[in-house]
Amino acid sequence: MPTVSKKGKLMPQSPIRKLVPFAEKAIKSGKTIYHLNIGQPDIKTPEIALAAVKNTALDVLAYSRSEGSEQYRKKIANYYAKNDITVTHDNIIVTTGGSEALLFTFGSIMDVDDEVIIPEPFYANYNGFSTSSGVTIVPVVSKIETNFALPPIEEFEKLITPKTKAILICNPGNPTGYLYSKEEIKKLADIVKKHDLFLIADEVYREFTYDGLEHYSILQEEGLEEHAIVIDSVSKRYSMCGARIGCLVTKNKLVIETALKFAQARLSPPTLAQIASEAALETPQSYFDDVITEYVDRRNTLITELQKIEGVKVGTPKGAFYCIAELPVKNTDAFAQWLLEDFDVNGETVMVAPAAGFYSTSGVGLNQVRIAYVLNKQSLIKSVAILKEALKVYND
Amino acid sequence: MPTVSKKGKLMPQSPIRKLVPFAEKAIKSGKTIYHLNIGQPDIKTPEIALAAVKNTALDVLAYSRSEGSEQYRKKIANYYAKNDITVTHDNIIVTTGGSEALLFTFGSIMDVDDEVIIPEPFYANYNGFSTSSGVTIVPVVSKIETNFALPPIEEFEKLITPKTKAILICNPGNPTGYLYSKEEIKKLADIVKKHDLFLIADEVYREFTYDGLEHYSILQEEGLEEHAIVIDSVSKRYSMCGARIGCLVTKNKLVIETALKFAQARLSPPTLAQIASEAALETPQSYFDDVITEYVDRRNTLITELQKIEGVKVGTPKGAFYCIAELPVKNTDAFAQWLLEDFDVNGETVMVAPAAGFYSTSGVGLNQVRIAYVLNKQSLIKSVAILKEALKVYND
Ligand SMILES: Cc1ncc(COP(=O)(O)O)c(C=O)c1O
Ligand SMILES: Cc1ncc(COP(=O)(O)O)c(C=O)c1O
Repeated sequence: MPTVSKKGKLMPQSPIRKLVPFAEKAIKSGKTIYHLNIGQPDIKTPEIALAAVKNTALDVLAYSRSEGSEQYRKKIANYYAKNDITVTHDNIIVTTGGSEALLFTFGSIMDVDDEVIIPEPFYANYNGFSTSSGVTIVPVVSKIETNFALPPIEEFEKLITPKTKAILICNPGNPTGYLYSKEEIKKLADIVKKHDLFLIADEVYREFTYDGLEHYSILQEEGLEEHAIVIDSVSKRYSMCGARIGCLVTKNKLVIETALKFAQARLSPPTLAQIASEAALETPQSYFDDVITEYVDRRNTLITELQKIEGVKVGTPKGAFYCIAELPVKNTDAFAQWLLEDFDVNGETVMVAPAAGFYSTSGVGLNQVRIAYVLNKQSLIKSVAILKEALKVYND
Repeated sequence: MPTVSKKGKLMPQSPIRKLVPFAEKAIKSGKTIYHLNIGQPDIKTPEIALAAVKNTALDVLAYSRSEGSEQYRKKIANYYAKNDITVTHDNIIVTTGGSEALLFTFGSIMDVDDEVIIPEPFYANYNGFSTSSGVTIVPVVSKIETNFALPPIEEFEKLITPKTKAILICNPGNPTGYLYSKEEIKKLADIVKKHDLFLIADEVYREFTYDGLEHYSILQEEGLEEHAIVIDSVSKRYSMCGARIGCLVTKNKLVIETALKFAQARLSPPTLAQIASEAALETPQSYFDDVITEYVDRRNTLITELQKIEGVKVGTPKGAFYCIAELPVKNTDAFAQWLLEDFDVNGETVMVAPAAGFYSTSGVGLNQVRIAYVLNKQSLIKSVAILKEALKVYND
């Protein structure tokens, strides 16, 4: 019997996946679950985006250009200009989600056994893309005590080897909610220039910054033109995760040419979703204002309620819609399973994402969970109350 | 300055890509081009598919399950049942086009330097997927003289090494239009069982078979359950290439589990396109009957007209909508460029795909082109007339 590849065996599962069968059983047994574990916003997709698809006059759903339609890329460039980022449509390749932009980036700049340095905890699927590309992730630990700020730049420097090709950051961060400051970006810019590395910034949460803080993109940093590669996506920005449209943005011509070859091999990004995404660029500012107000309100509620629980430590996220919380338990993997299997308050329980899956260093983050605030305020309050009660019972 | 990966440098360009700048110049200079070079059908997408998207009540365009919605997969299984293929929804992973199904398959069953044997000429993007997976394609030449039938099975056997993991066929074939017989499939089944290999069949053109011939899927072959992996797609079947929906089908549980990990890393196939594709399954038989009638008519016209040209050799494709033609020129790369740059009949010319790009063995197929019959009959007749005139002038 033929068998699967070593690579296939090594491919990681999502940190939540192990819990899914327990969640399914819980639901079957009649429990209600509050999902604090997912990154799928409940916010409505802008009507203008859905309407564009409904009103399309297409009668042949044809391939688009591999790099995305020129018209759409020009409008994306225009969107960046409004965000003080100067790029042209030639600097952009439209991809099937930010996911594919990551895959193309890894393939374009790294060979098997090359290394990419990433501050951890990080978006768990970076593991999948690195495994499928045969690339090694070298983690630098960032700490809950500093709200997951950039680790000292010496920590990065220590890890650079001849195999290091890039530093990858997520800004604002999933799962940390941390927003890097301009000074932090400048430190990263210096080090990648000094060592001739790429700086990849996953900026899919760019729009989600709070407390008056502004996002500083690596594309705004002068002198970084040949080094900076941005990963972007419509998924969270317009609450259209299912569209599967993202992009890769860089002024490095050779990277664009190379990524384009990967894009050509898979022919085209989805056409209907490009129509929706192009229209989404016309979303009125009031939509974003409302969304930000909603998220800030949720974040404040979540953090305030969590901080009331004894033994829980949590930072204040400045962006995205996640936070990492440290719980007074030894192993959140076991705790998360127990929440689904053995616990409920009047038939209700919560599902959280154990944070160990967001770390590459083993044994770190065992007592942490990632909580997403993509539920409405009432549900968040309920969820934290359930969590509080659960911790009491669990630790009894 | 940081630079791109070796893999990125090795990534091939599509055989047509080199010609694109010349085509663009020709269009700018006012020439009309008949595109015999592309695989984008001009046939209308079934109304039922587009209507489903227009009528959707979705207000949040959310991620679907990584493996595709259960409902859609159940309907796909049902579609296969109607085609005498017995599979369940658990044997199916919905992908972003057949392209992604190929990528997941390569990643799931092959490691760097592993080998896959493919009869050539073959779909050029297999090169891209193998390069990006670090896998080596080992070609077996099939010949225009036999209409590109399966090469003698000994030819395959000779090439099997400890690194060989799979044999990949495209059935019906792009670019050959050849439809493998049941006997040929059985020969392949025997050899993969004997050597413990996978048999991957790219069956995206399954529906397009002519002259009363029936497609025999590797999934119909008993005893091949652990070996057979089918690549499928809605792109050509329903003329919805831009949807980007395909699937990977296998009864090998370990392969499904492994491919699912690749699918999870990229989160979800496109949601709107899944809605369209699910509805497309309800396309009435009359649609396909009309399409087949149309393609047969086009094929007959094309082949008849081509055979009238002195020095042109062409087989009779039994499926898909391509054929390979041998032309009385030394190098079709140069000829194709000349057609765009230096030739026209009353301001009109044709664009063809030089066939060398469909061969892995260098120096083979230099005098061949791939012609797609995705234009209407009138345009095909015109195109061949232009080609005939061009050959006369070129060889003068
Ligand atoms: C940090 C980060 N990057 C990339 C992605 C990929 O998203 P998509 O492929 O939907 O654009 C996600 C999705 O959750 C994410 O959180
Ligand atoms: C033989 C073959 N396989 C796979 C594909 C990929 O198609 P898609 O990704 O649109 O399903 C094509 C497209 O032309 C093809 O011709």
